[in-house]
Amino acid sequence: MAEILEMTPAPHPIEVQKAPGITRIALSSPPANALSIATMDALSKALTAAAKDTDCRVVVLAANGKVFSAGHDLKELTAHRADEDRGRAFFEKTMRQCSALMQQIVRHRCPVIAEVNGLATAAGCQLVASCDLAIASEEAQFQTPGVNIGLFCSTPMVALSRNLTRKHAMEMLLTGERIDARTAREFGLVNRVVPPEYLGTVVGKYATTIASKSAATVRIGKEAFYAQAEMGLAEAYDHAAAVMVENMLARDAEEGIGAFLDKRQPEWTGR
Amino acid sequence: MAEILEMTPAPHPIEVQKAPGITRIALSSPPANALSIATMDALSKALTAAAKDTDCRVVVLAANGKVFSAGHDLKELTAHRADEDRGRAFFEKTMRQCSALMQQIVRHRCPVIAEVNGLATAAGCQLVASCDLAIASEEAQFQTPGVNIGLFCSTPMVALSRNLTRKHAMEMLLTGERIDARTAREFGLVNRVVPPEYLGTVVGKYATTIASKSAATVRIGKEAFYAQAEMGLAEAYDHAAAVMVENMLARDAEEGIGAFLDKRQPEWTGR
Amino acid sequence: MAEILEMTPAPHPIEVQKAPGITRIALSSPPANALSIATMDALSKALTAAAKDTDCRVVVLAANGKVFSAGHDLKELTAHRADEDRGRAFFEKTMRQCSALMQQIVRHRCPVIAEVNGLATAAGCQLVASCDLAIASEEAQFQTPGVNIGLFCSTPMVALSRNLTRKHAMEMLLTGERIDARTAREFGLVNRVVPPEYLGTVVGKYATTIASKSAATVRIGKEAFYAQAEMGLAEAYDHAAAVMVENMLARDAEEGIGAFLDKRQPEWTGR
Repeated sequence: MAEILEMTPAPHPIEVQKAPGITRIALSSPPANALSIATMDALSKALTAAAKDTDCRVVVLAANGKVFSAGHDLKELTAHRADEDRGRAFFEKTMRQCSALMQQIVRHRCPVIAEVNGLATAAGCQLVASCDLAIASEEAQFQTPGVNIGLFCSTPMVALSRNLTRKHAMEMLLTGERIDARTAREFGLVNRVVPPEYLGTVVGKYATTIASKSAATVRIGKEAFYAQAEMGLAEAYDHAAAVMVENMLARDAEEGIGAFLDKRQPEWTGR
Repeated sequence: MAEILEMTPAPHPIEVQKAPGITRIALSSPPANALSIATMDALSKALTAAAKDTDCRVVVLAANGKVFSAGHDLKELTAHRADEDRGRAFFEKTMRQCSALMQQIVRHRCPVIAEVNGLATAAGCQLVASCDLAIASEEAQFQTPGVNIGLFCSTPMVALSRNLTRKHAMEMLLTGERIDARTAREFGLVNRVVPPEYLGTVVGKYATTIASKSAATVRIGKEAFYAQAEMGLAEAYDHAAAVMVENMLARDAEEGIGAFLDKRQPEWTGR
Repeated sequence: MAEILEMTPAPHPIEVQKAPGITRIALSSPPANALSIATMDALSKALTAAAKDTDCRVVVLAANGKVFSAGHDLKELTAHRADEDRGRAFFEKTMRQCSALMQQIVRHRCPVIAEVNGLATAAGCQLVASCDLAIASEEAQFQTPGVNIGLFCSTPMVALSRNLTRKHAMEMLLTGERIDARTAREFGLVNRVVPPEYLGTVVGKYATTIASKSAATVRIGKEAFYAQAEMGLAEAYDHAAAVMVENMLARDAEEGIGAFLDKRQPEWTGR
């Protein structure tokens, strides 16, 4: 949806790299890294594979090229206007798949960290908002420009409005203008802004820190976070207290608390 | 509710100015711009008229004089303590009308931008919080001083607590003290703070930018924003995805996306 | 849960001081001020007593020593692993009591101000987040380190995520790292950060300011704040408008508004 010049069909829309405990999934259809059906499919499959990979404890969501992601593939969408139903079925498929992908990130058993190298617009900006954490290069920019082309960023707003305060979200959505990385940090869209040459290092530090924790504990905590966020206070406490009791009885909490009291390093089993 | 000296009954509690695409509604009962029944009536009617005016694409909510609005008209309220029911019926009418007015802003088909020239207190502060965007002069101040006079700002808190974090909102509500414009920006109550002599220009720039978009698209997006804000994540995505499909099939999205791909200016029809 | 060296059983886990209108409750089991069953019991009883004390209009929650609170008493929890049920009953009792204590603060008729002198971790950090206002010393630090010992801070997240934006809360919860007082202020966890030597003075100023208001008005407002926060917009306005009508008809509003219009000091009766 941004001012991206053209979209070269890429043979490999996704690139996956594994390091101990960390799976790095990079959008790899430069220059736009558009979220075509094929790219969303590949990204979703890579996320599913990471969830099944018992060694994976953190996912990094990155992008190759100068743009993080320009959002939906407008040419792909537009081509389906020639369909008998004027594209309705294809648009439904696209929006459903996109919404499912964003929720897959939220429900993923591993924390997902966005590594934002450049411009993130529309559904690309939504990807960043949907991640648990986000680290941005000083050169990153963020935009929900749908309003400029007659297609309001209504699904991106779901993620955006759960990260930003209302007036900040509305400013992005109604003006369609870009904000720079520092503003994004001020708005709560990203956790940290770093010089581009340190982006990989800083993301790596976060990923390594989180990968050093008990995978079982992190899974329990992430799941509880988003569950309780939708509840009233009393219900949230009932839920979180029950979660914490089960967590206390799990093996890794026994080991972790024991190690802490004994002043030694814990050995996680992931249970 | 603020330290306003007196309230001169004004013949014209509201002043309406129209520019292409933009309706500017100014509170016009200086010095306090109090939200009496008559002023709320006039403001509500002006908002309804703007919604019906097909040329109107943005509403600016401003104020004449040095104060934005000091909130409810305390003399009017107090006079009704002499009623047989000690004022209950009149107080109910006032609070109902005020709450309906604030929700009318939220549900208005056009974005509403608060242009805050000076002190905004109690229901006046609530007006600012209820707008989609707010630009403040450096001389603006904000306050929910009800607690100082035994009448907690309970309806203002509804709007305030949907814009500010809890501890910031509580600080304003419990201490009843004024905050300056920069603090209001930090708290998320206003989007931008500008020197007083540039207030009109900056608000005009925002209004012109938004008025240049498709009115249909903006209406769809604003409505979806507040609807999904009250839903859980899965429901919000179902709703937003359905909205986006209809938006894709509307004429202005076809035109806007086509124009973008053809690198030309779109021509909106408002459908 | 923090790096506290040892926990000396204290004869008086809580210290209570009364000044006119203000009850100061200090955790008093240094060095860790751990929230053992005995301490939570004592704290809950002190809060109940303050609520019943008609002179009390503000509660200050403070701590003696260099640490605010290190959260749950891990030795006490661990000792119960030897129980027949591996501790389940005791863990349930602890989590239930802790959740009830936090909600007691939220539902307390008086505003509760956290006076944070030093490190606040896990349930200690949750205490701060649960208070209506929080003032921190420049030397205070905040941490939800459960993830480091295999026990995710799931109940603390309930309070934390209702004060901080999602990515800020997630950063604290997933990394388990400390943040300093200025970052906590930026994140919305505390209202103000002051040099340690002024902490008592600034907290006292807030407490005195709030204690000078009508206790009835403050009770009405605080209760309405947390009630409406869990409602949709229309329901919240219906509730708040009804609250405000009753407030208008109460004696202190009549006195307060009358005094304001007469330019004299109000005399509160607390009704």
